[in-house]
Amino acid sequence: MQINVELVTIGNELLSGNTTDTNSAWLSQQLNLIGLQVSRITSVPDIKKDILSILAESENRADIIIMTGGLGPTSDDITKPALCEFFNTKLVFRAEIFTHIESLLFKKQLKINEYNKMQAEVPESALVLHNDLGTAAGLWFEKNNKFFISLPGVPFEMKGLFINKVAPKFQELFSLQAVYSKTIITHGSFEAQLAETLKDFEDEMPENMMLAYLPSPGIIRLRLVTTGDDLEELKAEVKGQINKLQELIPEYIIGFNEDTLEEIIGKILMDRGQSLSVAESCTGGKIASLITGVAGSSKYFKGGIIAYSNEIKTDQLAIEKSLLENFGAVSKQVVENMAINSRLLFNTDYSISVSGIAGPSGGTKEKPVGTTWIAVSSKSATNSHEFRFGDNRERNITRASITALNLLRKLLTEPG
Amino acid sequence: MQINVELVTIGNELLSGNTTDTNSAWLSQQLNLIGLQVSRITSVPDIKKDILSILAESENRADIIIMTGGLGPTSDDITKPALCEFFNTKLVFRAEIFTHIESLLFKKQLKINEYNKMQAEVPESALVLHNDLGTAAGLWFEKNNKFFISLPGVPFEMKGLFINKVAPKFQELFSLQAVYSKTIITHGSFEAQLAETLKDFEDEMPENMMLAYLPSPGIIRLRLVTTGDDLEELKAEVKGQINKLQELIPEYIIGFNEDTLEEIIGKILMDRGQSLSVAESCTGGKIASLITGVAGSSKYFKGGIIAYSNEIKTDQLAIEKSLLENFGAVSKQVVENMAINSRLLFNTDYSISVSGIAGPSGGTKEKPVGTTWIAVSSKSATNSHEFRFGDNRERNITRASITALNLLRKLLTEPG
Repeated sequence: MQINVELVTIGNELLSGNTTDTNSAWLSQQLNLIGLQVSRITSVPDIKKDILSILAESENRADIIIMTGGLGPTSDDITKPALCEFFNTKLVFRAEIFTHIESLLFKKQLKINEYNKMQAEVPESALVLHNDLGTAAGLWFEKNNKFFISLPGVPFEMKGLFINKVAPKFQELFSLQAVYSKTIITHGSFEAQLAETLKDFEDEMPENMMLAYLPSPGIIRLRLVTTGDDLEELKAEVKGQINKLQELIPEYIIGFNEDTLEEIIGKILMDRGQSLSVAESCTGGKIASLITGVAGSSKYFKGGIIAYSNEIKTDQLAIEKSLLENFGAVSKQVVENMAINSRLLFNTDYSISVSGIAGPSGGTKEKPVGTTWIAVSSKSATNSHEFRFGDNRERNITRASITALNLLRKLLTEPG
Repeated sequence: MQINVELVTIGNELLSGNTTDTNSAWLSQQLNLIGLQVSRITSVPDIKKDILSILAESENRADIIIMTGGLGPTSDDITKPALCEFFNTKLVFRAEIFTHIESLLFKKQLKINEYNKMQAEVPESALVLHNDLGTAAGLWFEKNNKFFISLPGVPFEMKGLFINKVAPKFQELFSLQAVYSKTIITHGSFEAQLAETLKDFEDEMPENMMLAYLPSPGIIRLRLVTTGDDLEELKAEVKGQINKLQELIPEYIIGFNEDTLEEIIGKILMDRGQSLSVAESCTGGKIASLITGVAGSSKYFKGGIIAYSNEIKTDQLAIEKSLLENFGAVSKQVVENMAINSRLLFNTDYSISVSGIAGPSGGTKEKPVGTTWIAVSSKSATNSHEFRFGDNRERNITRASITALNLLRKLLTEPG
């Protein structure tokens, strides 16, 4: 049995763009985890007729309709009157909700007002989902074997209600099919190139499996999703496909699921008790910022130099003036010396250095904007590579940073 | 004339929750700015029949339908075949798109493949919107005086096409009511506090004007939007309101519109021909990264030290060991010395230093997680302040960085 789920997010702020709808993505992921698939997401404003029409439309297509938003205490929150009209019921006062609201406000040392009182009124035919975390109760309706759930729009209240009240009821009501997914993180290729390499792989995939390409600057995620009766079988199936991918594109795979390069590197260094420093020119602190974004990074990251000016390159990093004059700051010679000197100066096991032309100005015919030299250095080896990124400053900085972290990952995981 | 706009975002990743739909909020804001209001947003998967049904439904309700996504080079991208079916047309090869794709790939030193070639095929009846920033062309269709626009899902490509191609066409086609908006950027207050201070201001605002609060870590943007017949009148109206705000909350206003602190600081330093360096501990390169995100920052930013370990603080920044032992790394004494030594070492006019406990570990009873000392230094003054941010590492780093930049802004703009 295919169960169709639609999400309806309600709120003027979503249609004006003042608020990004993050509830939908969260709910979709959570529904996936219990074997339910969202087939459509609709955002409508706090206008009664718009809410009524999307409910009528969704009812024709879906078995489950989950709404968020419009349950707040202010006059623009119109979801409850709309639900009353849709289900032909009326608002009734629920003493237990009122008591809960009183106690919540008491904790915040606030006095209850008329607006709060109205939050204790709910549609008579609704089953009330008690909201521990806020004043707006969740509502559960059934009509012709279809389920309508109305949740508050505040993300942490919505999440609490979904996890504790809604998901368990779904699992009880439906004997749901199992879903399993795993994300493969790749770096160093492009969507079209990967798609070509993986054409046969995709053609040969089991029918119950899907592959999605999720590109972002410097990183392409490949997501395998599979559905079936037996979770263990699905896991084995995905594992088999991942083994295939590791044979097809080993050079591009850098991790799985939520891994980031900075976390992968951090784990290796932490396990080995080794240390890292950086010498950044065009990335201007971005690499250090990514590394130190990871909790616990002070265990392996000592710090570094942002050598944005040539003066700092010579005075603090001891790069010989003749190298800068003969080869330029964006050169193999300078970037390798930056890495080696950083490693020695900060007394670390590894170092990363970058020197490039982020743009928009500073490019020449031989070294156009985007030209970037990156080096990684250990006690036994110093590797450097030249890259030509694009002409967008922000993306050049991001791509140089991710590429540098990946070169370090490769150096750390090299045999020998 | 009321013009109805609907957005349709297409992609399995939106329905699985792997990707949050940020395109819709951005488009809604941009449409607002040219006087158009979005009445519904729908996300559908990369399934032809789903795309066809939402197009048929939207056509009945809206005058303009803007789609994003599904134009990529891989087999799951199904938007173009769906559009061909909907508009009863066929895919044709466009040599000028192919040439553009070739030149884009050539710049990245990549060879063109079958998938890239397919991106040069577009529905015959579509007007092609040339995409400078990527390989997927935008498409513009007209049918019974309704407009259908299909844009790539990659945000920066979609944004480029919307700003440069779509918005100007809308402004030309419709005689839109003038809309004028200005954003006031504030730092140092909280949403509820600002809302209370500005209650009377809001009540007295002209009826055609709206005020929105747009909070993000460390920064609250106040957006004034006004609509009317005469743009010059609207500008004068907004100017009057901003004058009022400058009297009501002068201490919180740090800039306008898209200004960022790092740009404001950059402009001042650039104009004066002065220079800046940083010494970062807990912010780990974030401040330098923000500063160097600004094009042209090499004119005034020389670089700095990421002194994540105490060893680097003593060895490279010449912080006396006794200071670290007696007061700790997170102290007025250490952070002021970091700023002064950074300024002297790198020979700059100004410097910023930060030392704090970003968390989640490292806190003590006296100095809990979030405790942060920030100093700014010039040749004539060194100011330092202690802050207690929260318990979230990521937000602590962001707030410390923004607060540090704002302290420098204040030092730069101080009289005398």
